[in-house]
Amino acid sequence: MQELFYDIKECAQQIYKTIKFDMHDSFYEYMGQGVGGDLSSKIDLFAEQIFIDRLQKYGKIISEEAGEVGEGKDLLIIDPIDGSDNLLSSFPYYGSSVAMQRDGKTLFSFIVNYANGDFYVKWEDFFKKGSLLHDNLKDIRTNYFAKIGLFEKAYANPKIVKKLKQNSYKFRSPGAVALSLAYAHYVKFVIFIGKIRAYDVEAGLHQCEDLFIYNDDTTIIVAKEREVFAKLLEIVGKG
Amino acid sequence: MQELFYDIKECAQQIYKTIKFDMHDSFYEYMGQGVGGDLSSKIDLFAEQIFIDRLQKYGKIISEEAGEVGEGKDLLIIDPIDGSDNLLSSFPYYGSSVAMQRDGKTLFSFIVNYANGDFYVKWEDFFKKGSLLHDNLKDIRTNYFAKIGLFEKAYANPKIVKKLKQNSYKFRSPGAVALSLAYAHYVKFVIFIGKIRAYDVEAGLHQCEDLFIYNDDTTIIVAKEREVFAKLLEIVGKG
Repeated sequence: MQELFYDIKECAQQIYKTIKFDMHDSFYEYMGQGVGGDLSSKIDLFAEQIFIDRLQKYGKIISEEAGEVGEGKDLLIIDPIDGSDNLLSSFPYYGSSVAMQRDGKTLFSFIVNYANGDFYVKWEDFFKKGSLLHDNLKDIRTNYFAKIGLFEKAYANPKIVKKLKQNSYKFRSPGAVALSLAYAHYVKFVIFIGKIRAYDVEAGLHQCEDLFIYNDDTTIIVAKEREVFAKLLEIVGKG
Repeated sequence: MQELFYDIKECAQQIYKTIKFDMHDSFYEYMGQGVGGDLSSKIDLFAEQIFIDRLQKYGKIISEEAGEVGEGKDLLIIDPIDGSDNLLSSFPYYGSSVAMQRDGKTLFSFIVNYANGDFYVKWEDFFKKGSLLHDNLKDIRTNYFAKIGLFEKAYANPKIVKKLKQNSYKFRSPGAVALSLAYAHYVKFVIFIGKIRAYDVEAGLHQCEDLFIYNDDTTIIVAKEREVFAKLLEIVGKG
């Protein structure tokens, strides 16, 4: 897994530098619809190509824009740019995610935030936070001071917003779901309600394995505390 | 103004380094209610003291935690930590803002994002983006590709969320209002509905002067395009 990690980190470093120093207008052009259904911009395709070239040797790739690429027993599930609309609006919350699956089970995940260079990597009992800018790795410390949760796609779910308000749950809605799942150990909760595709969530769910998780076709709820989790299930109508 | 800018930048660098490298548990402690009404944590007070020590020579300070400090003709309106709840939840969207007012008019503003070190500084016709990590300054380029807006305090305003959805306006809700106003030239719109205090918005409004702005005691709407602005006024009930 170490080798996979270093390869992904180098891909991420290359994408990070391109976004930071070489992002020009042509990257904003839309290049048609990706397999995942969203419009692909040039930056999505650029990032995807970097991952495909480097990671194909590890197995079959399943990626948001290109769909399935290559062959192999292991699957690499990639969201080349998580939060594309944020990136294209210069709003600093976007990244990439990669999950590696073997026999239907996710064994490895990597999620990076290009706005600040932080990444989160996990395999077996190795789970660390690092930065694209240096080699130090830190343990993930669960934060029990958290006052806010993250609610992805709040804009599409006004009824849930209303119920969260009635229960005095404050949330942020930042717009990059893998990234938000990577922050699940820090914040009070993470909710995602909308069309869920493997590239959006496999890496994030892997990183939340030790938390309370509810997960179906349209809904993800993650919380650190049992009572918060139970309340959110009720609010979202899955209680 | 140049001298004020350098002094503020150095304060921000000091706070940035402390948050990045020396943030320990005691910074999360609440130290009682600030003058602005919110609970002040130790990191709020720490950041405020850095600004007060350095900026007192420029005039009277009005700050979220301490209220009014010192004397002078000019006013320095400071939010030492904009997005405290985000910082205390390790969610990467928080900063500081400083506005300088003379005779009731804001002449200078500085807004910094500690999550990535970016800052935005404006006085007269000088309006630049920079970074705490280097000395280069760039022009602010208005982004006409933006697909998302920012809606601060969406969690407290489900009815507006519903109306935005009916009009197909996608938004993010990141939780630091000065910072969100600093991004107004990039995103489609910025809405803030809630209790508005000078330290929250003076610097941000100054940086949006060239955009369409609506601003009363409880509501701020900023947009680059006239039609978007008119529609948002209608949605928020100020049309």
